[in-house]
Amino acid sequence: MKPLVSIIMGSTSDLPVMEKAAELFDEMAIPFEMQALSAHRTPAEVEAFAKGARERGIRVIIAAAGMAAHLGGVVASMTTVPVIGVPVNASLGGMDALLAIVQMPPGIPVATVGINASLNAALLAVQILSTADETLQQKLAAYKEGLKKKIVQANEALADVRFEYKTN
Amino acid sequence: MKPLVSIIMGSTSDLPVMEKAAELFDEMAIPFEMQALSAHRTPAEVEAFAKGARERGIRVIIAAAGMAAHLGGVVASMTTVPVIGVPVNASLGGMDALLAIVQMPPGIPVATVGINASLNAALLAVQILSTADETLQQKLAAYKEGLKKKIVQANEALADVRFEYKTN
Amino acid sequence: MKPLVSIIMGSTSDLPVMEKAAELFDEMAIPFEMQALSAHRTPAEVEAFAKGARERGIRVIIAAAGMAAHLGGVVASMTTVPVIGVPVNASLGGMDALLAIVQMPPGIPVATVGINASLNAALLAVQILSTADETLQQKLAAYKEGLKKKIVQANEALADVRFEYKTN
Amino acid sequence: MKPLVSIIMGSTSDLPVMEKAAELFDEMAIPFEMQALSAHRTPAEVEAFAKGARERGIRVIIAAAGMAAHLGGVVASMTTVPVIGVPVNASLGGMDALLAIVQMPPGIPVATVGINASLNAALLAVQILSTADETLQQKLAAYKEGLKKKIVQANEALADVRFEYKTN
Amino acid sequence: MKPLVSIIMGSTSDLPVMEKAAELFDEMAIPFEMQALSAHRTPAEVEAFAKGARERGIRVIIAAAGMAAHLGGVVASMTTVPVIGVPVNASLGGMDALLAIVQMPPGIPVATVGINASLNAALLAVQILSTADETLQQKLAAYKEGLKKKIVQANEALADVRFEYKTN
Amino acid sequence: MKPLVSIIMGSTSDLPVMEKAAELFDEMAIPFEMQALSAHRTPAEVEAFAKGARERGIRVIIAAAGMAAHLGGVVASMTTVPVIGVPVNASLGGMDALLAIVQMPPGIPVATVGINASLNAALLAVQILSTADETLQQKLAAYKEGLKKKIVQANEALADVRFEYKTN
Amino acid sequence: MKPLVSIIMGSTSDLPVMEKAAELFDEMAIPFEMQALSAHRTPAEVEAFAKGARERGIRVIIAAAGMAAHLGGVVASMTTVPVIGVPVNASLGGMDALLAIVQMPPGIPVATVGINASLNAALLAVQILSTADETLQQKLAAYKEGLKKKIVQANEALADVRFEYKTN
Amino acid sequence: MKPLVSIIMGSTSDLPVMEKAAELFDEMAIPFEMQALSAHRTPAEVEAFAKGARERGIRVIIAAAGMAAHLGGVVASMTTVPVIGVPVNASLGGMDALLAIVQMPPGIPVATVGINASLNAALLAVQILSTADETLQQKLAAYKEGLKKKIVQANEALADVRFEYKTN
Repeated sequence: MKPLVSIIMGSTSDLPVMEKAAELFDEMAIPFEMQALSAHRTPAEVEAFAKGARERGIRVIIAAAGMAAHLGGVVASMTTVPVIGVPVNASLGGMDALLAIVQMPPGIPVATVGINASLNAALLAVQILSTADETLQQKLAAYKEGLKKKIVQANEALADVRFEYKTN
Repeated sequence: MKPLVSIIMGSTSDLPVMEKAAELFDEMAIPFEMQALSAHRTPAEVEAFAKGARERGIRVIIAAAGMAAHLGGVVASMTTVPVIGVPVNASLGGMDALLAIVQMPPGIPVATVGINASLNAALLAVQILSTADETLQQKLAAYKEGLKKKIVQANEALADVRFEYKTN
Repeated sequence: MKPLVSIIMGSTSDLPVMEKAAELFDEMAIPFEMQALSAHRTPAEVEAFAKGARERGIRVIIAAAGMAAHLGGVVASMTTVPVIGVPVNASLGGMDALLAIVQMPPGIPVATVGINASLNAALLAVQILSTADETLQQKLAAYKEGLKKKIVQANEALADVRFEYKTN
Repeated sequence: MKPLVSIIMGSTSDLPVMEKAAELFDEMAIPFEMQALSAHRTPAEVEAFAKGARERGIRVIIAAAGMAAHLGGVVASMTTVPVIGVPVNASLGGMDALLAIVQMPPGIPVATVGINASLNAALLAVQILSTADETLQQKLAAYKEGLKKKIVQANEALADVRFEYKTN
Repeated sequence: MKPLVSIIMGSTSDLPVMEKAAELFDEMAIPFEMQALSAHRTPAEVEAFAKGARERGIRVIIAAAGMAAHLGGVVASMTTVPVIGVPVNASLGGMDALLAIVQMPPGIPVATVGINASLNAALLAVQILSTADETLQQKLAAYKEGLKKKIVQANEALADVRFEYKTN
Repeated sequence: MKPLVSIIMGSTSDLPVMEKAAELFDEMAIPFEMQALSAHRTPAEVEAFAKGARERGIRVIIAAAGMAAHLGGVVASMTTVPVIGVPVNASLGGMDALLAIVQMPPGIPVATVGINASLNAALLAVQILSTADETLQQKLAAYKEGLKKKIVQANEALADVRFEYKTN
Repeated sequence: MKPLVSIIMGSTSDLPVMEKAAELFDEMAIPFEMQALSAHRTPAEVEAFAKGARERGIRVIIAAAGMAAHLGGVVASMTTVPVIGVPVNASLGGMDALLAIVQMPPGIPVATVGINASLNAALLAVQILSTADETLQQKLAAYKEGLKKKIVQANEALADVRFEYKTN
Repeated sequence: MKPLVSIIMGSTSDLPVMEKAAELFDEMAIPFEMQALSAHRTPAEVEAFAKGARERGIRVIIAAAGMAAHLGGVVASMTTVPVIGVPVNASLGGMDALLAIVQMPPGIPVATVGINASLNAALLAVQILSTADETLQQKLAAYKEGLKKKIVQANEALADVRFEYKTN
C-alpha cells in the first residue's frame, strides 16, 4: 500500500521523538513512510523528495528538526502538500527550533505543533486526511473518547489518594 | 454556497490582522465565514460552534487570538475538524499567544502559524482542502509561481539601486 | 463535610506537584476535593464541574496545568467562583504555562501563582476564605509565625557554619 | 462608607493603568480607596498600611508596580489579607514585573493577573468578595452576560464586513 | 569587474537594512552584487545561485533575512563559499531570525553577525578577503583608525557638556 | 577639584541616558568626569584609562554601554576600582546589554544596575563613596527622605482623582 | 572584631551558593557575618537588620535570594549602606531572580552580580572597602595576579593536549 | 609548520567543547594552535596575542567563551584577522554568551556560530582559508559529501525500524 503520510526528520537521532507518530499511524492503519533527510546535508535529496511528494500520492508531510530547523520550511517551499513541523528540543528548550519553524514568511506556511509533539503532529495529519475520509473521522472521534476514558480511569486512581487526605 | 472554512477570532479587534486570510479565500473562490467567538466570554457559543462545525460542512477552522490564547485549543478539543491557530500580537510581541496556542497537550493538536500570520493560515487551509481537490492544487501551484514573480520584479527595481553603488 | 475548595489538575501526572496544597488544607482542616479534569480531553466534564461549582458550595477553585495551560481560564469563563491557576513546569521551565494562565483577556481573571507553587495556591485559597472567617485569619497568622520560626531555627544551624569561617 | 478594597500603586505614574479597576468598583458600588505607596521609597508607610489593613476592614488589596515590582510581595508578607498583584509594563514588555510578582517564595502568595490587567485585578477582587456575598455573585453573573453581549454586537458589525468578502 | 562579494536578501524590503553593507564595499572599492532571493519563494534560483557562486568568483556571500530566516543556511548547504548571515528584525526584536540563522546543525556553519548589523557583515567579508590580500589589510587598519577618531571627536563635543556639569 | 567618579560610555549617543547620573553628582557636589570610551574602537585608550584610574584618585567608575556591552568588564579587568555597569537599551529591550554586563566570570565583578538606570548607578557610586564619608551618608539620608516626600505629594494629587471615583 | 560585611540570604538553602563569598572574606581577613533573613517571612527582622546596619559598622551588605528576589531591594530601601544582590538560580535559570534584583526603581539601587555569583559579590565588596583602604587595594592586586597565574598553569596543562593534536 | 588558525578559550574548562574543532583541523591537515586566554583575567596576554596574530601568520582566530563572553570581541577590536566566536553554554542555556558575542557594535564584527558549535567554527575557518586555497575547497567539497553519506547510512538503519512499523 502506498504511503499517504511521509515522516522526515533532520537526523536519525530524532527517531525516539518521532516514534509516537509512527505508532499512531499504525494504530489508525494509515500507510506511512519515514526517513532522515537534512535540509542542509542532503539538499538535493530534500528537493527530489519535496517535488515528487504530491505525485507519489503523499497527502501530508511531517518534518521534525531541531536548532535552526529549516527542514519543514524548505520542503514547504517546494510542494503544495501541507507540511507539519515538529520542533525538536536539541538546545534552548526547543525555543530555537520552534521559532525557526513557526515564523515562516508570508506565502509558505508550516503547520507547527508543540516542542517534541510528534503525537500531535500525527493526529493533525489524520485530521487533515479525515477532511475527505468519513472512516477516519469516526476513528478520530473514537480516539478522543479514549483520551477521555484515560482521565476517568486516572481519576479513579486519584480517588484513593484523595481519600487519604480527607480522612486526616 | 456553504462555507468550507470558518475563521473565528477572539475579538473583533483582531479583524485587521485576519483580513488577509479573507482576501485569499476570495481570491481562491473558497466559500468561508468569519465571526468573533471568545473562548472565555462566549463559551456556550464556542461549544455550539465547535460541535456543529463538521456537520455544517466546515472542513478547516482558523482561530485567531492574543495573550493567553485559548480559542483554538478549546475548539480543537470539541471537534475533529483540523484547527489552525493564529497567535495575535497583543502583548509581549505575541510570544504569550504563540506558546498558549502551539504547546497543546498530547491528543489535541492546533496547527500553529506565525505571529499575526493570517495569510499563511489561509494558505495552509487551502493546502489542506487541496489534499482532495485537484483544482485547488493547480491554484496553489499558480499562487507559488506568483510569489516567485514578485521577487523577480523586485529584483529588477533593485538592479537600479545596485548600479548606483557599482558606479561609485 | 462538603468541600469548600476544589483542586483540579490537567493530568494525574501533576499530582506530585499538587500534594503540598492538599497537605495545607488538611493542616488547616479545610474540606477539599481533588480530581483530574482536562480542558481539552474532557471538556464536557470541565463544563459540568465549572457550572455546578458555586451551587455545590465550592468557594475557591485551584487549577493546575502545564504547557498551553487552558484549564484555569476555561473554568473561570464558566463560573464566578475565584479560580487560582498553578502553572506546572512541563516544558520551557514552565514559562509557557505561566503565560497561558496569567495573560487572560479582560473580563476573565485567573489568580496566578508561581511555577509549581501549589503551596502558595493553597495559602491564597485560605486567605480568600479568611476574608469572611475570623478563625481562619487566626490560623493564617499562626502559620506566618511558623514561617518565621523556621528561619530562626535555620539561623541557629547557620551560626555553627558561620563560626567555622570566622575563626579561620 | 469604609473601603473594602485598597488599590495601591508603586508610583502615581501607574494611575492610567489602574483607572479601569477604579471604574469597575464604582460600577459595582464597592467602596474602595486608592493611593501611591512605594515598597522602596516609603517602606514605613507600606508597613503601617499592610499591618493595619485587616483591622480597617480591607478585605482585598490590589498592588500595582513595574520593573523589580516588590510592592505586592512586601505587603503580602505583613498581612493575611489576600493581595492581588498587577505587573505594570515599564520595561521589557512587563516581563520583569510579572516574574518579580508571581514567583513569590513558599508561604507568601501574591495573586497575579496579566501585565497591565487592572480590570482583571478588580474583577478578581469582586470574585473574592463574592465568596461571602450573594448580591455580588449576581452582579458578577450579570457582568459576564454583558461581556457576551458585546461579542454578539461586535459580530453584527462584523457581518457587514463579512458580506463584503462573500460577494466578491 | 567581477563581483567578489554577493549580498542576497530574503525580500527587497530588507534593502534599507543592507545599504550600509553596500556603502562599505563602495568605500573599500570591492566589487559586489546585490539581489533579492527567497529561500522559500524562489528555491530554484537560490540553488542556482549557491551552486554557481564559487565558479563565478564569489568569495563571500552575505545573506540577510528575517523571521524564520532560512536563506543563509540553505545557501550554505549548497556551497563551500563562506556565508555571513544577517538576522533582520521583522518580529520579536529579531530574536527569531537570530536563532534561525546562528543555531545551524553540525557541518553547515553560517557566520552570524548582530541583528540588522549589515555594516559588520560587510566588514567581516572584507576581513575574510583580507586574509589573502595585503592591500585590504591596510585599508582595514585605516578603517579602524577612523573609528577611533570618531570617538575622539565625539569626546571633544562631550567636553563642553561635561564642563557645564562641573561648573554647577 | 580632582574627580572622584568617572563616567564612561561606549558612545556619545549614550549621553542622554547618562545625564541623570551627572545631575546627581552635581546635586551632591561630587566632582566627576565624563567621556566616551569604546572597548572595541579605542582599546588602547580604555587600557590607559583603566590602569591610571586608581592613581588619578578615581574611586568609582560608571560604565554605560549597549548591545554586547563589554566596556564595564574590560575596564574591571584592568583595575581594582569598583566598576558600576549600566546596560543601555539599544536592542532587544536592553536584555543583551544586561546579560553582557552582569554575567561576568568569577574574579572580575561588575556592579550592575537596571537597564538605562543611570540615576541608580550614580546613587550606588555615592553609597560606595559614603562608606568612608560621614557627610555623604547624611546627604544620602536626606535624599531618601526626598524620595518619600515626592510620593506623599503625589498622593495628595491622587486624592482628588480618588474623590472623583468615590462620589460616583 | 566587628564585621564590616554582612551576608544575608533568603533561605539557608542558599548557603552552598554563598560559601565562596565567605571563603574569600576569610582569605582576605575581612571580618564578616552571615545569616538567613527573609524579606517575606521575617520582615520585622529584615527591617531591624537594615536600619541598624550602618550603626553596627557594616560597610557593605550582600543579599542573596532566588525567584521573586526582594531581599536586596527591601534592605536597600532602609539603609544607605551599599547593597550587593546575588540572584540565586532556583527557577527559570535564575532569570526571575536576576530581573527582580537588578531592575530596581529610580532611587534605590542594588549592585547586582551574575546568577549564583557569590565570589564576585564578595570581590565587589572588597573593592568597595578598598576605596578607603590601601592594604586591601594591594590584596586585590595580588588576587588578580593569582587569577592570571591559574590561566598560565592551565595553559601548561593544555600544551600537552595541544601537542597530541599537532603531531597527528 | 606555523599555525594558520588559533583557537583561544576563556577557560581550560571549555576544552571539551573545543575538541571537535581541533579534530577537524587535524583531519584537514591545517596547522593550528590552542590556548586559554581570558579577556578579564589575562588582558595583557590577550592584547599581545591579538596584536601579534597577523604578523605571526594567523589567518583566522576562533574564540570560545561563556557567560558575559567578551573574549572574541576584545580580540576583534585589536586585530583585522577575522574572529569566529563560539558561545559556550555555562549558564542560561548559553543565551547570555550568544548575545554577548553576536551583538557587537558597528565596526567590530565577530563571526558567531551556534551555542557550543565548535565544529562549525572550525569548518567556517576552513571555508575562510579556502577562499584563497583550491586544495581546501576540494577537501570541503569532499567533507560535505561525507555528511550526505552519513545520512544515507543512517537511513539504511532506519529502514529496518520503518519496516517494523509498516508490517504492524
